[in-house]
Order: sequence, then structure tokens, then C-alpha cells
Amino acid sequence: MPEKVLIYSRLPKSLTQRFADRFELLDSGGTPAHEVFPAEEVAQIRALITAGGTPLGADDMDRLPALGAIVCYGTGYDGVDLKAAAARNIVVGHSPGANAAAVADVALMLMLASVRRLTAADSYVRTGGWVEARPSPLLKPPPGLSGCKVGVYGMGEIGRKIAARVAAFETEVGYFSRTRHDDLPYQYLSSLDALAEWCTVLMIAVRAGAETTHIVDADLLKKIGPDGHVINISRGSVIDEGALLVALKDGIIAGAGLDVFETEPHAPDGLTSLQNVVVTPHIGGNTRESHVAMQACVVANLAAFFAGETLPYQVK
Amino acid sequence: MPEKVLIYSRLPKSLTQRFADRFELLDSGGTPAHEVFPAEEVAQIRALITAGGTPLGADDMDRLPALGAIVCYGTGYDGVDLKAAAARNIVVGHSPGANAAAVADVALMLMLASVRRLTAADSYVRTGGWVEARPSPLLKPPPGLSGCKVGVYGMGEIGRKIAARVAAFETEVGYFSRTRHDDLPYQYLSSLDALAEWCTVLMIAVRAGAETTHIVDADLLKKIGPDGHVINISRGSVIDEGALLVALKDGIIAGAGLDVFETEPHAPDGLTSLQNVVVTPHIGGNTRESHVAMQACVVANLAAFFAGETLPYQVK
Repeated sequence: MPEKVLIYSRLPKSLTQRFADRFELLDSGGTPAHEVFPAEEVAQIRALITAGGTPLGADDMDRLPALGAIVCYGTGYDGVDLKAAAARNIVVGHSPGANAAAVADVALMLMLASVRRLTAADSYVRTGGWVEARPSPLLKPPPGLSGCKVGVYGMGEIGRKIAARVAAFETEVGYFSRTRHDDLPYQYLSSLDALAEWCTVLMIAVRAGAETTHIVDADLLKKIGPDGHVINISRGSVIDEGALLVALKDGIIAGAGLDVFETEPHAPDGLTSLQNVVVTPHIGGNTRESHVAMQACVVANLAAFFAGETLPYQVK
Repeated sequence: MPEKVLIYSRLPKSLTQRFADRFELLDSGGTPAHEVFPAEEVAQIRALITAGGTPLGADDMDRLPALGAIVCYGTGYDGVDLKAAAARNIVVGHSPGANAAAVADVALMLMLASVRRLTAADSYVRTGGWVEARPSPLLKPPPGLSGCKVGVYGMGEIGRKIAARVAAFETEVGYFSRTRHDDLPYQYLSSLDALAEWCTVLMIAVRAGAETTHIVDADLLKKIGPDGHVINISRGSVIDEGALLVALKDGIIAGAGLDVFETEPHAPDGLTSLQNVVVTPHIGGNTRESHVAMQACVVANLAAFFAGETLPYQVK
């Protein structure tokens, strides 16, 4: 008999199909399992699949008494209370690097779109502004990327792929991360503040957590400056969205490209009405190949867990 | 007394200011000079500045009897009848390479936006689709760029810069151009047809002219195929826009990114109502640095001409 696995977050059926081939899925569509399934079924659940950003705390774990494995679909696991999991002997797995190229591509897309004002440009053409020669939002040419200083915050697998791509645009690349990587051909800045002072474009690729919450705040945005852009493909929690909104409205920075938001799927109305921001609904890892790779990590983690082995992609 | 220079195309004042510091500008705002200025003034015009795509034929030249130099603002000169100019001993100058990095950046922006469906994604967030959990246009993950075959058509300065950027995205790069360049680390395909058969993303960076008009037609689009994308930063005339519209509507290709159109500033309504296309109003070279560089070429060409010297950036 196949093992039971709870689908903890709201995940499209198209993404969980591959798991259904191998496990018996209890999919509560994002509602707590005990509200949907009989108590005796919930009591049998030994493993679950979750989106790493979905909150999963001690109380949630306690409602699943047999739980032994939390497997995150994707690289992030910031929603999971790791201490609470450890205290309950629950192992946590994820899909490291499986989506790194796809996420880095979106980071570059948002950077180029923000610097070259794609939102305003596309809308100017679509609404007839160009053909009617209405005053153009693009009349004042923006600074280009060549020679521009791009700062990468976080140098994990995604940060590295972002940096490699950015460097091909004839830019100067700098980075800040907890660890200095001497194998990388980029300038190391010793703090996020120093990176913000140095760069014109800030690419946020840091792993989210308590210590990074709202670390990009009003003060930091001021350091990036009026020609500056902020791109976030990490987690919405890293940016103080209120401060970002003010910075974009008041010209404290020039633009922003955001794939992630503080309270998804909610993108603040104030942000989405601006033309100097480009927004996408957390599509970083959303490519055919990256889903296949992430699903392979999930299956491998679950198979190992049910076989009583160490997870191949375990969060340390 | 400063030399008189005609501004032949409609160019924003902000872009011609630097020329006004050095020359006496006769700016007819895109209207033929003889309709705006007295005949004796028109008869004195020895040089003009034009956007390379603006039509400038034998008849136009004959209405400027003293004309000795046509100086294009930008790298293109496809609007200028070179044979007619040569027959009248009129030299033609342009700004080669000055905008190559800026144009290549827009090519990459449009490629990423088309492959990752930025138009649909941004609009889904802005119109509330995400927060209301409306059916997502992004539900079916698109193929990502990694491992994808990208074909560059044309290997001039812009094509080279496009290829160097594209290669950083873990893609396979191939190209077709009249000349095979053995110094380049990319696969050479022997025809545009072969390139279209081979690639998933076609980047058009060819110099426009009579022999490239509508060379990207219905047959070629079929070769690119249903996962394919067409990106054009060259000239609109290279693509048969009617065929492209059908291909985008019928799923013959997946998407397109267009900075240029057959009859600018007109972008066909059919195209601008589609979500699998991203459009920009010919902003390829529109950065601060690239305007400075293009203006420097224009000034150098004009100064040389009035000094009786060979143009430093002469079209051969």
C-alpha cells in the first residue's frame, strides 16, 4: 500500500500529479488537515509536502502527531519552524539549486525591465501613446547597464547564477553574503549597507529568515539612490514594502522588480499602480525543467524517509 | 558663423541640444525643409542629421541642391538610398556600435520577457488575478532558457553583444550571418532556414535592407515551432507582421518580443492586444550613455565634413 503524504500548502494539481503516482496524497487545498480529513487518517500522516514559504509552526506540527518529515517543494524553507521540527524529531527537506537557473533568469528579466522601464514602454505602445505621439514616459533616456555597479545580496546557488548572468552585461558585480567566497571574481563588500552605498542595482538573493526581515528598509533604499533599482526574487519579507512604496513614489530610487511579496498572493495596491515597478506572481522557479528537478528532489526525499534513510536533500 | 545643419527626421529637442551648441540647426520637425524654410536657406544646406530608418530618397536629396553629407543618428541607415547619395557625391555617416550594448540589453530583456511571459504575469498581478486566485495564464510552466538553443541572425556589433549575453544563461548559441566568424565560440548555421530549424529563440540582429525585407515569414516561423520565440531589435521590415500575428494567435510560435515595427510609430492593433507578445517603442539605443556616444559620432562626422575631411564613421 502506498504511503500517505499530506499536501500541506495550496499547490496546483498539475504540480502534484507526479507524487500521486507514487504516494497516496491527502490534499487539503491549503486548509488545515484536521478540518478536512477524519482524525484517524490525520493521525497516520508521517510526511507532508509544503511550499517553503507557507507558515508551518509548532502548533501545526502538533496537530499531526505521527509527522516525521516535512518536505519543501523548492529551495526555501523559511515558513518552517526548524527548531520546533528538531524538537519533535521531524526532518526537513528541500530542493536546493533545482530552480536556481530559472530564478536567476527571472531576476535578470526584472532587472532589465526595471532599468529600461519595460512596464511604461509596453503600456505606452499598447494604449496608443506612441502612435498618437503623446508625451512619452521614456523621453528622458535612463542610464544603461554598461559600466553600472550591480550588487548581489546573498551568494548561494541563485546568487551565483545571478552574478554570472549580470557580469555578461558589461557591468561591475559586487556582493555581500555572510561568507566571503574567494573563488568568485566579484568584489566583496563587507556589509549590506556598504553594498547598497556601492551599487546602483541591488539584487536580493539572500535566504530569508528572522535576521533578514525588513533588512531592506527606508535607510537602505536611500543609500541605493535616485538612479537605483531593487530586484527581489528571494522572499517578500526581506523588504519593508511600505518603505519601498514611498521610495518609488518619491524618487528615492528609480525602480523595482518584484517576484515576491510580504503577504502573497497579495501585492500591495500602491505598488501595482506604479509604472516604475514590474511585478510577477512568484514565478521564479516556474519552468518545466525546474519543476521536474524540484519534484525529483521531493520524491527522493520522501522515498528516503519512508525507507528509513537520511534525506538526500535535507535542511541542515 | 556656425554651419547650417538640417534636422531631417522628427527628433526630440533633448537629443539635438548638443548639436545646437556647435551648428546652426534648421529643425523642420520631420516636415520637408522646403515646406518650412525659405528657398534661399534650403539652398545653403550642406549637411543633415537623420534617423537611419527615415526614408530619404533621390527626390528628397534633389530638393537640397547643396547637400554633401547625410549623417545618421544611430547605427542604421536603411532609410537612405545609398546609390542615389553616391550618384550625387553625398557622403553618408552613421554611429556604428555606439548603441550596441544598449540595444543588446533590450534584446535580452525582450527574450526573457517573452520566454517567461512577463506581460501576462505583470498584468495578472496588477489586475488582481493573483490575489483573487483567478485561473492563471502561467499555470502551465513554460520551458526555461537553460539548455535552450538561441539563434542569432546577424553577427555585427549588436549580434555579438547579444550572443555574449545569451551564452551566460546556460544556453546553446548558434548564428547565421553572411560571413562566418571563426573567432566566435558559437555554432554557425549555413542559412537562416537552418538557424530557424535549429533554434527555439530567434534573435534578429541583422542589418535591414532590400534583401532582408519580410525574410521572417510564415514558413520561417513554422520552422521555429510552437515552443519558439522571435525577438526583433533590428528593423520592423525584416518580419512579415501579418504572418507573425497569425503565428502568435494560432500557436505556431509561443511568443514574440518586438522593439521595432514595419511602420513606426504604428504597432499593429492585432499585435498589441495579445498577451504572448511584449512591445517597446524602439527604445533599443535609448540610454543616456548610448545617446552621448551616438551624438559624439554625429558631431565628429559633421565636423570632419565641414573641414573637408573624410567622415570618421562613414557608411561604406
